[in-house]
Amino acid sequence: MAPSRAVLNFPRRSLCQIASRVLSTPQRRGISAYGYEQAKCLAFEKLGEPKDVLRLHGHSISPPHGELLTLRFLASPINPADINQIQGVYPSKPTFTTSLGSAEPLAVGGNEGVAEVIAAGTKAKGIQKGDWVIMKKQGFGTWRTHAQTTADNVVAIKNKDGLRPEQVGTVSVNPMTAYRMLKDFVKLQPGDWFIQNGANSGVGRAAIQLGKLWGYKSINIIRKRETGMEELVQDLKSLGADVVVTEEEFEKREFRDMVKQATDGGREPIRLGLNCVGGKLVNSMAKHLATGSHMVTYGGMSKQATMLPTGLLIFKDISFDGFWVSRWSDLNPEEKDACIHEVLDLTRKGKFKDVPMQTVTWDVKTKQEELIEAVQGTLEGYRSGKGIFLFGET
Amino acid sequence: MAPSRAVLNFPRRSLCQIASRVLSTPQRRGISAYGYEQAKCLAFEKLGEPKDVLRLHGHSISPPHGELLTLRFLASPINPADINQIQGVYPSKPTFTTSLGSAEPLAVGGNEGVAEVIAAGTKAKGIQKGDWVIMKKQGFGTWRTHAQTTADNVVAIKNKDGLRPEQVGTVSVNPMTAYRMLKDFVKLQPGDWFIQNGANSGVGRAAIQLGKLWGYKSINIIRKRETGMEELVQDLKSLGADVVVTEEEFEKREFRDMVKQATDGGREPIRLGLNCVGGKLVNSMAKHLATGSHMVTYGGMSKQATMLPTGLLIFKDISFDGFWVSRWSDLNPEEKDACIHEVLDLTRKGKFKDVPMQTVTWDVKTKQEELIEAVQGTLEGYRSGKGIFLFGET
Repeated sequence: MAPSRAVLNFPRRSLCQIASRVLSTPQRRGISAYGYEQAKCLAFEKLGEPKDVLRLHGHSISPPHGELLTLRFLASPINPADINQIQGVYPSKPTFTTSLGSAEPLAVGGNEGVAEVIAAGTKAKGIQKGDWVIMKKQGFGTWRTHAQTTADNVVAIKNKDGLRPEQVGTVSVNPMTAYRMLKDFVKLQPGDWFIQNGANSGVGRAAIQLGKLWGYKSINIIRKRETGMEELVQDLKSLGADVVVTEEEFEKREFRDMVKQATDGGREPIRLGLNCVGGKLVNSMAKHLATGSHMVTYGGMSKQATMLPTGLLIFKDISFDGFWVSRWSDLNPEEKDACIHEVLDLTRKGKFKDVPMQTVTWDVKTKQEELIEAVQGTLEGYRSGKGIFLFGET
Repeated sequence: MAPSRAVLNFPRRSLCQIASRVLSTPQRRGISAYGYEQAKCLAFEKLGEPKDVLRLHGHSISPPHGELLTLRFLASPINPADINQIQGVYPSKPTFTTSLGSAEPLAVGGNEGVAEVIAAGTKAKGIQKGDWVIMKKQGFGTWRTHAQTTADNVVAIKNKDGLRPEQVGTVSVNPMTAYRMLKDFVKLQPGDWFIQNGANSGVGRAAIQLGKLWGYKSINIIRKRETGMEELVQDLKSLGADVVVTEEEFEKREFRDMVKQATDGGREPIRLGLNCVGGKLVNSMAKHLATGSHMVTYGGMSKQATMLPTGLLIFKDISFDGFWVSRWSDLNPEEKDACIHEVLDLTRKGKFKDVPMQTVTWDVKTKQEELIEAVQGTLEGYRSGKGIFLFGET
C-alpha cells in the first residue's frame, strides 16, 4: 500500500535530514525519490483579515508510517465560516501548530474539502491508496495541497463513480445543513410547506432540491437584483422551487393572499422556516407559519436585528432554533456518514445538483496572491457562486 | 342526587315560565321552592376596558336534568389573561350567548375557578353533589355565582381534605404553567439550574417551589422596589429560591462572576430560562445558559422588545420557545388532571404554598361596582397579590 516501505525503517532523525535535502531539489508533482511530498498550504500565524494574514507556506511530508495516510487535496471550497474563523469572529478557533516546520505556530485555513489518499502506512485500516476522503470534523485545514492524518479524522468515499471532486468536496457543509434542518426540527409530511430566505445560497438550493425529493413544497425568498433576476427565478424553479419571491414582494399584502391560495387556505400548512438573513423579514416569515412550527436560523447575513415575537411564541407555539452543522457533525459522526453517502448517491443519479461555483485552480504555478485574492473575494457577498480551490498538478 | 326530580318531568317551556315567576320572588341563597338557582355573573356584551363593558347580570338556573350539573362557585381568580380577553387582545376569544336570558348575547368573564356541585341530573356520571370541580378548558366564564354544565367540561376534585377553595381555584393556570415549563422543554437533572425573571409572580413562585422539590436550583430575578425588598427576598428564599437578584444587579459584571461561582464554574449548568418580562434582560439571561438550553417565554409584561440573538441560536444551540397553558391543557386533558392532583397533594401536605392573594368577597350584598373595581384593579400590575373572588352566601 505504502509506496516505499523501506524508508519506514530509517530512524526519524535521518528522515528529517533527507527531507531538507529533498526540499532543495524539487521534482515534478513534488514527489521526491524517497516518497516525500512537497506540500503547500494557505496558512496564518495570527487572526485578522485574510489579505493581511494569509501566506503560502511550503513544507515536506514524509512517507506515511503506522496508521498515517498521506492525502493529496482535490477540491476545497471557500466557505464564509472559513473567513470568519481567520478573522477570529467564529466560535470554533483555528489550531496553531509548529508541526508544519514553521518557526512560528501556523494554522491552515479551510474546513471542508475532498482529498485522495496517495499513500497509507502499513497499519492504516479501512482506507487505501486511491480512496477519496472528506474531513470528519471542522478545523482540519483544507486549503493545502497535501496533508498527513489518520483514518479516524476522515470519512472514506469508497464509491466515487460518477462524482466530480467539487461535488464531493462541498457535500459536508451546505447540503448537510439543509438536510438536517428539513428533518430534525419538524416532522414534515409530503405536501407540507417550508419557507426560506437566502434561497439561492448553497444551503437554500440544497433545501429546495431535498425538499422536492421528499415531497415538501417551498416558498423561496431572494434578494432583488438588477440583472439576471428572471434567470435566477427559473434556475431555482428548475431545482424544484414552488414559489420564488423577492424580499420586497414578500412583504406585500397581495403576496399574503397568494400564499393563502397556494397553501389551500392553510390546509397545506407551512410548518418550517429556514433563516440565514435576519431582520424584520424573519418576523414576516414567522407570521405565515402554522401553530407549532419552527423557525431555524443558520446565518445572519443582513446583520439586521430580528425581534423575538412574544405573541407568536406563546400563542402560536412557534419555536426559534438555530443550527450549526459543525456541532451536529461532531456529535453525530455516523449519521453524518450516512447522510453524506445519501446525498452523493442522489448526486450520482443526477437528482441533486451542486451549486454554481467559481473555481480557482491551484497548481504548481499558482501564486500566493491569486489564492489570497480568491479568499478575500468570497467576503464580497453570497450572490456570486461559491469559491472553490481545484487542485491541479501540485 | 338531584334535589327535586319531579321537576324534571315538566316540559321545558313550563320550566321557563316558572323560572320567570321565581325570579320575581327571590329567596335566601337564591334557591326557589322548585330548586331553581338565582345566579349572577360578571358579563359583557362587547369587547373593551373591563370598567366600561362589565356588568352584573342576573338569571335563573333550572334544576339539572339528564347529564347536567348545577355548580355554585367557591373561588374564581382574576388573571391578567381574563382582562386581555375582555379587551379583545387575547387570542382565545370569549363566547357570546343568549342562553343566560339576556336580550343581547353575553359573555361571562373569567377562565379559572373552583365550584361545588350542588345538584346533578340523573344521568350525570362520575360526579356527584358535594364534589368540587375545576374547569377543564378555558372560556368557561368563572366570574359567576352559579353555572350549569356537564361532567365533560370539568375536572372533579374528589379529595378536598385539607384544601381551601382559593388553593383549588388557582391550581390550573400558574402552578400548571410552572410545572410544564420545568418538565417539557429540557430534561433537567437534580443539581441543574434554571433562571427566571418575574420570579415573584404566581408562576415564578410555583416554579421555585416545584423546582426545589425536584432538586433543581434557581436564579430568580425580580424588579427593584422601594419598600419591602428584603421581605420579598426572604419570602422567595423561604419558598426555596437559591439566588434572588434584582434586574439591575443581574446586569452587573459582579453578578456574572457570582453566577459562575454558584454554578461551580459551569459544572452545574443553567439549562432553562423562564421569561415573562421581555426586553434586553432576556438576552442577558440567555448568555448564562449552557449549550443546548431553552428559553421559554410565557409573558411579556415589560412590553419591551427582545432581540433574537443569532449567535446564541446557531453556536450555542439555544432555543427560544413559548408556553401557553390554555393550549397545553386543551391538548393534554389527562395529563392536566394528573398534574393538578399532584400539585393539590403537595398543597395538602404543606409542600406547596399558594401565592399571596387579594380576596374580594362576592355575596348577595356585593355591588356591581365592587366587582368591576376588583377586575380593573388587576390591570395595575403584577406586584400586588393576585385578585380572587371568594363567594359567600349568594
